[in-house]
Amino acid sequence: MTVTRTTTDVRVARAALSGLVEPGHREVADLLRSNGPVAGLERLLAGAVSAGLASAVRARVAVADPVTVAEQGLRRCDRLGGRLVIPEDDEWPQSLEDLQEIATGDEPHVHPPLCLWARGGHRLDTVTQRAVSIVGARAATSYGTHVASELAYGLADRGWTVVSGGAYGVDGAAHRGALTAGGVTIAVLACGVDTAYPVGHTSLFERIAADGLLISEWPPGANPQRHRFLVRNRVIAALSAGTVVVEAGARSGSRMTARRADELGRVVMAVPGPITSAMSVGSHELVRQFGAALVASSAHVLEEIGRIGEGLAEWPGRGAPGGDRRDDLDPRAARVLDAVPARMAASVDHIAAECGLSTRDVRRSIPTLVLLDFAEESEGGFRLSESARRDLARREPAARPALR
Amino acid sequence: MTVTRTTTDVRVARAALSGLVEPGHREVADLLRSNGPVAGLERLLAGAVSAGLASAVRARVAVADPVTVAEQGLRRCDRLGGRLVIPEDDEWPQSLEDLQEIATGDEPHVHPPLCLWARGGHRLDTVTQRAVSIVGARAATSYGTHVASELAYGLADRGWTVVSGGAYGVDGAAHRGALTAGGVTIAVLACGVDTAYPVGHTSLFERIAADGLLISEWPPGANPQRHRFLVRNRVIAALSAGTVVVEAGARSGSRMTARRADELGRVVMAVPGPITSAMSVGSHELVRQFGAALVASSAHVLEEIGRIGEGLAEWPGRGAPGGDRRDDLDPRAARVLDAVPARMAASVDHIAAECGLSTRDVRRSIPTLVLLDFAEESEGGFRLSESARRDLARREPAARPALR
Repeated sequence: MTVTRTTTDVRVARAALSGLVEPGHREVADLLRSNGPVAGLERLLAGAVSAGLASAVRARVAVADPVTVAEQGLRRCDRLGGRLVIPEDDEWPQSLEDLQEIATGDEPHVHPPLCLWARGGHRLDTVTQRAVSIVGARAATSYGTHVASELAYGLADRGWTVVSGGAYGVDGAAHRGALTAGGVTIAVLACGVDTAYPVGHTSLFERIAADGLLISEWPPGANPQRHRFLVRNRVIAALSAGTVVVEAGARSGSRMTARRADELGRVVMAVPGPITSAMSVGSHELVRQFGAALVASSAHVLEEIGRIGEGLAEWPGRGAPGGDRRDDLDPRAARVLDAVPARMAASVDHIAAECGLSTRDVRRSIPTLVLLDFAEESEGGFRLSESARRDLARREPAARPALR
Repeated sequence: MTVTRTTTDVRVARAALSGLVEPGHREVADLLRSNGPVAGLERLLAGAVSAGLASAVRARVAVADPVTVAEQGLRRCDRLGGRLVIPEDDEWPQSLEDLQEIATGDEPHVHPPLCLWARGGHRLDTVTQRAVSIVGARAATSYGTHVASELAYGLADRGWTVVSGGAYGVDGAAHRGALTAGGVTIAVLACGVDTAYPVGHTSLFERIAADGLLISEWPPGANPQRHRFLVRNRVIAALSAGTVVVEAGARSGSRMTARRADELGRVVMAVPGPITSAMSVGSHELVRQFGAALVASSAHVLEEIGRIGEGLAEWPGRGAPGGDRRDDLDPRAARVLDAVPARMAASVDHIAAECGLSTRDVRRSIPTLVLLDFAEESEGGFRLSESARRDLARREPAARPALR
């Protein structure tokens, strides 16, 4: 029988917990909700929990004293320039707490993280305010890595953080694309933030620690055990407004990330590829069976994220010089848009007369324009949306024909 | 002032009309509905129509006598082993009359064909009973032609007729794929069936005339004028249960075919490709903006066609040994399906208990199973659909666990 130390420090308690139990654990989440981390740890160490959990904890305690290990971990993290981020900190992202909502089923490891070990200078809450995850196959084709890197570049270039899992293939390409754009990228690891897994990504992880964020639910020294990748995926999904899958085989971990994103009410997107490529099968199935949105550019990604209500106001594409957004419209919709008045709403008949299309054509294009926030309904007619008016004022103050 | 001949022969009258006016014309459709083709032609030749139509007809009559031209055309077609198919014939496909329903807008050339000049031994109504059109870019990449040919092969191999437009690129590849499978293919031309346009498809058209059907709304000798391709596209859409677009640039005629198919209530499908390929932009936009179904195999095409109500009963995939359909299910849905009882409906709770998944997981998979016609709701629970029961009886009579 080992004698175990306890602690009165919330941070040390959470650090110890992260080494004692696998993250997302339902019973531990309940325990902390009732007792808080300090007393929760005490109860856990005292064995005042279910037999299964108690025995798992006993096995780890037998190897080393958890509080001592925690303190060592915190010192090691500190030496690496890192820190432990805990829910009690200001920088803890509220988005992670959404996991609470979906952790109702039979799956035991879906709850929010106990804490996040982090390396990197950014505040986690700030950089995840506008974040998209890009995930996909480790055995990606050159098409897959090219696409992942281009998408990440485009998103980072517009100020979005790119979240991924640090793996070979798509993940690595996404991180690199974001770094190349001078943007922020977050690698969510399934091992300690002092462990380079895969080894070939050692220098990539150093760059991410320098310019982005390297985070993990597991303490320094933790090994990337197989099941940890799947548990980790929920954090990737939760930290981002949407998940883009680029190349995924028929049964890939990316599907799990996509599923979590969907459960969390995030946007699920997939990049298509040649139907002759086994690596795109998973992406196509996500679109077919899962209703994932097909995206072929970073503009599409932001458009999809913009479509969900809460993202609308913050979407940097809106209000910015909207040239590329207009270019995405089909020619008919673009022609209709040119005839939509800025302030006084016009009827479909009037818009049709103005642009020289049939009322039927106008009626067909209007929903797209409204959906993409170019136009809005008003007084039984249609006019430009506020953001379209702003765009217009910025781009071509005098060019618009006066309609009434 | 030319003196024009008239005719009492319905077939000659329609042949003459097909040389006098561009097909799908609204006023001509109205004229024939009120007067029939013989008296309709007489009124047209007498100028008892709108000024615009009368002047267009006068211009053609001035060149040659329309009834004489019609008789020459019929003789020429006869010499080629062809025939004129008219709505009064038994083999006229009723599917073409659906065009009547959508010919309500401002577009003047959407009405059903006046007649179809045809070469080939098949009855048009029979071979269009199960038909899919495959259309796409003339300037297709090797990926596009490969995919078109594979899809066509797979569909023809399962007894489906492949309809296309006879053009270079995707169209030609689709025709060839169907012919290679020993299946039936229909080329809907925008010129006379005696005219090889493009010239490089001369021998392909001969093969199609021998093994499939070469059809056109225009009489022998008619030139493939630019606008005729767009008018022709409505026939491709109308003759098939669904249209698959394989590679289409941003502004392609294939989009028009897809739009017609959609208006006609047919299934619109698009094959994805590399997002780095300009030739796949149109396909991806069809999925994104138009709601086209993404398809990556001929099985997907038949699945999509099977989803619309009327196609369900006839879908050859249903009732056939369903191995590949089950393989399309994700692992969870497949597991749930194994627990769905054949006859006595079971509640979600019972199904969950049987397959060892949570009720939540079962609740998530059931809609897919119902949508794909594996399961059906019954007495507040779920059981296998009739077709799934048939499949089961055929494949594994004793293998199913007895649930209650």
